[in-house]
Amino acid sequence: MLTKEQLFLSACIDEAWSFQGLTLPNPAVGAMIIDKNFNILSIKAHQKAGDAHAEVLALLEAYEALTQQKTNLTDPAQIHEFLSTHHNGLFYDKTIFVTLEPCNHYGKTPPCAKLLSTLKPKQVVIGAQDIWGQSAGGSARLKEAKISTLFLDSKADIKRATDLLYPFMCLKNSHHFNLFKLAMRINGDYKSGIISCEASRIFTHNQRTIATSLIISGNTIRHDSPTLDCRFATYAKHNPNIQILTKDSSLQNLNALRNAPLFAIPNREVLIAHSPNDLILDSGYNIIEGGFGLFASLSHHIDALLIHISPTLAHTQILHSALESIHSYKLEFEILHTTQCDKDTLLWLKPIRS
Amino acid sequence: MLTKEQLFLSACIDEAWSFQGLTLPNPAVGAMIIDKNFNILSIKAHQKAGDAHAEVLALLEAYEALTQQKTNLTDPAQIHEFLSTHHNGLFYDKTIFVTLEPCNHYGKTPPCAKLLSTLKPKQVVIGAQDIWGQSAGGSARLKEAKISTLFLDSKADIKRATDLLYPFMCLKNSHHFNLFKLAMRINGDYKSGIISCEASRIFTHNQRTIATSLIISGNTIRHDSPTLDCRFATYAKHNPNIQILTKDSSLQNLNALRNAPLFAIPNREVLIAHSPNDLILDSGYNIIEGGFGLFASLSHHIDALLIHISPTLAHTQILHSALESIHSYKLEFEILHTTQCDKDTLLWLKPIRS
Repeated sequence: MLTKEQLFLSACIDEAWSFQGLTLPNPAVGAMIIDKNFNILSIKAHQKAGDAHAEVLALLEAYEALTQQKTNLTDPAQIHEFLSTHHNGLFYDKTIFVTLEPCNHYGKTPPCAKLLSTLKPKQVVIGAQDIWGQSAGGSARLKEAKISTLFLDSKADIKRATDLLYPFMCLKNSHHFNLFKLAMRINGDYKSGIISCEASRIFTHNQRTIATSLIISGNTIRHDSPTLDCRFATYAKHNPNIQILTKDSSLQNLNALRNAPLFAIPNREVLIAHSPNDLILDSGYNIIEGGFGLFASLSHHIDALLIHISPTLAHTQILHSALESIHSYKLEFEILHTTQCDKDTLLWLKPIRS
Repeated sequence: MLTKEQLFLSACIDEAWSFQGLTLPNPAVGAMIIDKNFNILSIKAHQKAGDAHAEVLALLEAYEALTQQKTNLTDPAQIHEFLSTHHNGLFYDKTIFVTLEPCNHYGKTPPCAKLLSTLKPKQVVIGAQDIWGQSAGGSARLKEAKISTLFLDSKADIKRATDLLYPFMCLKNSHHFNLFKLAMRINGDYKSGIISCEASRIFTHNQRTIATSLIISGNTIRHDSPTLDCRFATYAKHNPNIQILTKDSSLQNLNALRNAPLFAIPNREVLIAHSPNDLILDSGYNIIEGGFGLFASLSHHIDALLIHISPTLAHTQILHSALESIHSYKLEFEILHTTQCDKDTLLWLKPIRS
């Protein structure tokens, strides 16, 4: 039976997934503040590494709602400082839901567990435990401050909270998160014109601003002449480095590629590789944008798939013969989450390795 | 800002979508009972026309949870009678969430508004208004019984509650609900072997037990030799009537079709049509199972699409040239809902007519 804690935490998990892939190398985290009558005062997600954590953003928004006062604060250290000195006991009867145990160290921001120990909410309900050394120990600190903590610990709860951390954990444990990203229509067409809705494209361009590299095939350059910049990004713009996989090493092909518009984008490194082994896939957050041909070439390196499903149809020919080459790869996935992004549905998939 | 009422009602809406297409000609409805501390006592959906309504199932489950007593009741009239005489004031401090205004007439079951007027919960929170004549007036009846009622009435709330009623309203307003159903892999492949997970197949076979007819193409019969029965159904088994669309009216083709296994299924009518105009599409709940060729032929008659997305890949050739014939049809949809059905994701789509 669904519990109220699961329901509130689920809403935090959904909120966090809206920023999945945008917070790396930090985890995606969501948080909510409710009052003693279960009224929701705020629900926020961590949005970008270096920015304030989810629980801090939620606390600030709840503070502003309760005091009817806009602070316009964005700097994490300033928000910590402000809430620590101005809270005036406002949170004593509030409950905080957070998908990941509050951090307990000075990293890019001050420790959330320290702030919560000062604000002394009635209870902190937590999804996943923080097991990553330096930032761990948040709940112990809360207990020392006599704050009640509750970990949701059914198998399904732990799975939902842990799935949310999957990209972060790939990067933490194997030093790479290689994401294959594709936009397609409901008939599988991914080739006819602009497929994604505007919100999807903004999401993709925001991802590009924080990616280590973008990996595409020579075919994509020849057919689409993309600039692969981040012009739609709402995040601080930073054009990604590019890795191009092209089997043809003839001078003619290389010259043609080098005339592609993506080379005209400033402050960017471009690597041309003639074999998957020459690509840098063992470190960083690499986004692979291409068709199932490129997927087949790189399948062993792919940590997750993100499919933007556009609710449209178009007449097109799709040949998936490229997939014939990957017999050794078991082509099954687990759906980690589906997120609505305006008109499109985003499907996050994790390969099941046999 | 998300409210707690929206959050609780959303959970009811999600629960109801799990039975979407299985309740016709009744609407899909979900309901939840919470106690004064917001603990969730039950969450239930209406499952099948003739069975108890969502709020009645939720009340019974809450009663059983509160009294630690199993009733094993399933007959709607018996549940109404039992709760009316045994409630003992248990619901006076409870809140009921229900996605559709409780019915107020004797139809296949006694009126839910009558039962609620007897049980006297503290509050009834409602998604959509019942505007369908004979069953309407439930909330007025609750108010007469001095029960607080709350309609969620933001534009987004009304849309979510109304989207849930879409198949029901198609049937109510235009006398037909023509659902195009397709199972596909994440690369758009819908042709290679068994694609759906077991839970998806049970769902599809349950749908067949209540459908007026199943519509398929002659091609599907020739390639797949399906029986189109409901052997996996958990609902009372009832094999659907079949309508076959085949352009080829030669005696040879007709004889070949008539030898197909689906004709061996007892108690079934089979109609063979050589043009979409010869199909019966203007009344009843018709499920069209086929590829995008059949979709193209019938696109003007299709009220909704249901795509079962299997998180798998397979190498296959898909030719969508059939879609070229439907230039006049604007190939855009609105995603009504995504539902997880074990491993598969179900996408419910509504055509946007230009």
